[in-house]
Amino acid sequence: MKKVVVGIDVGGTNSAFGFVDKEGNILAQGNIRTDISDDFGEYLKSLTKEIYTIYSDISNDYEIAGFGIGAPNGNYFKGTIENAPNLKWKGKIEFVRRLNEITGKPVYLTNDANAAAIGEKIFGKAKNMNDFVVITLGTGLGSGIYCGGRLLYGYTSQAGEVGHIIVKENGRLCGCGRRGCLEKYASATGIKITALEFLKNSNQKSLLRNYNENQIDSKLIYDCALRNDEMAMRCFEFTGEVLGKALANLIAVLSPEAIFLFGGLALSGDLILKPVRKYCEDYLLNIFKGSVKIELSGLKENSAAILGAAALCYSESDI
Amino acid sequence: MKKVVVGIDVGGTNSAFGFVDKEGNILAQGNIRTDISDDFGEYLKSLTKEIYTIYSDISNDYEIAGFGIGAPNGNYFKGTIENAPNLKWKGKIEFVRRLNEITGKPVYLTNDANAAAIGEKIFGKAKNMNDFVVITLGTGLGSGIYCGGRLLYGYTSQAGEVGHIIVKENGRLCGCGRRGCLEKYASATGIKITALEFLKNSNQKSLLRNYNENQIDSKLIYDCALRNDEMAMRCFEFTGEVLGKALANLIAVLSPEAIFLFGGLALSGDLILKPVRKYCEDYLLNIFKGSVKIELSGLKENSAAILGAAALCYSESDI
Repeated sequence: MKKVVVGIDVGGTNSAFGFVDKEGNILAQGNIRTDISDDFGEYLKSLTKEIYTIYSDISNDYEIAGFGIGAPNGNYFKGTIENAPNLKWKGKIEFVRRLNEITGKPVYLTNDANAAAIGEKIFGKAKNMNDFVVITLGTGLGSGIYCGGRLLYGYTSQAGEVGHIIVKENGRLCGCGRRGCLEKYASATGIKITALEFLKNSNQKSLLRNYNENQIDSKLIYDCALRNDEMAMRCFEFTGEVLGKALANLIAVLSPEAIFLFGGLALSGDLILKPVRKYCEDYLLNIFKGSVKIELSGLKENSAAILGAAALCYSESDI
Repeated sequence: MKKVVVGIDVGGTNSAFGFVDKEGNILAQGNIRTDISDDFGEYLKSLTKEIYTIYSDISNDYEIAGFGIGAPNGNYFKGTIENAPNLKWKGKIEFVRRLNEITGKPVYLTNDANAAAIGEKIFGKAKNMNDFVVITLGTGLGSGIYCGGRLLYGYTSQAGEVGHIIVKENGRLCGCGRRGCLEKYASATGIKITALEFLKNSNQKSLLRNYNENQIDSKLIYDCALRNDEMAMRCFEFTGEVLGKALANLIAVLSPEAIFLFGGLALSGDLILKPVRKYCEDYLLNIFKGSVKIELSGLKENSAAILGAAALCYSESDI
């Protein structure tokens, strides 16, 4: 029997899972709602039931060898999810211990940005790299950092909070209670705030003026930019500038071989990539100029989180 | 015969060396001028001659097992010093290969800030730590970073350029050609510039007004602060604020267990430590609050560089 790993991506709304072989093929997949219950035990019962239902399709050929989980606020050291603001379960959720009790298989857990980085290392563009960073540009900004071939966890397992580097003194108010965090500029949320500021602080004509505040989001700004709307393009330019300069500082600390952009905003392609590259290179310390590739992730958006979670399990075990 | 390692600290003016045993005792030491010759071969001949002269004092009891070198712009991967602005030798200096040819012993080389970090790990306060940072506050600001028990080199071996994180947009002009680098604020050079700015931009009384620009340096500012001179104390407060905020950002990326301050400015003790701790903690992302110790290095200023260089050799070999 061939071996397969179950990669589970726990999101605020949905929990998607897939059966991933060692080559990174997803053989079968499914999902349940994450908010199905306030009680984690109920959720876990539904999740495992669904996993084993889907598994029956491939169980003649494949044996489940282990589980990998990517989850918001996932703590790799403890195997827990702790106080995730977007999840209903309160307190400390012992995901690893409890899934292991049910399945008897090895279970590994990390946060979603780390899972994206592990996915890039095992299945994406970073296969031959030991030092790289994955920046996830979603509602917020997350990062997974590889140093010397290993994921950087730090003392608390919470290293990589690049989204909460303060880049503007007295800047935009962040959900963390402080001001000027990078993720309030470089994320889907950030680019929306930028657009609203531009609309308010100028009289420049823009397609964006045809929409109300609730309708404006990163996708709409992208669509307008594709139609050569100058203000929308300026939103990407500004976002790329803030992110590019922050990455130049990050490079001075970490000296990575590459930085990969991943997630919603990264789907904008050159619109975000070009200004990020330009401002990063302009701001970079001489000795690093030309040494760092900035690219889009090599993983497909819709399967990356599952691949990343499965990759965690492959990278931690001998499967 | 007991084994001993030669730690060599290559500075712009002097090259100091010491015979260091596994417990971190310096059994004998000596030095030569680094600028003795533009020709590296001549320098190396003088250095090894002096090392073996001093060695004769202890050669009945100790056998030289290897060499460790800390040097500005030292490249650990290549074993070279490349284009160090403060050294006379031009181009790429193959220090490791050439010292190994002469001595037949293993030779390791890294930059001076990394050597300080390795010294802290092997002989200092970080013995039981896997994730920590040493910040060297000399003429400039250097850093050595441990992640998961290993020194962070990055792809180029030049990770840890924390001194060249840009902390003030359009800030003070740095020797690297850019503006606002941390080391133009948090270093002996930085605090002098701060004092000169304070003197120029205010009418506040200060003991510092009794001196001319050339006489003002970090030591004088320290002395005046000890005499409760308000402006001098404000210099430390401001320096600590800039450094503390930068460290808060660094912690968000690395999540270290501790940050150690080392070098000239760190000798000011609480004058620098208190504001650094205060502003760092104030600016820190919630999840890291209380998780990071900020302390003075556990190594003595005058022997630290030699210990660090020797520690590199011990950490890389089975001696």
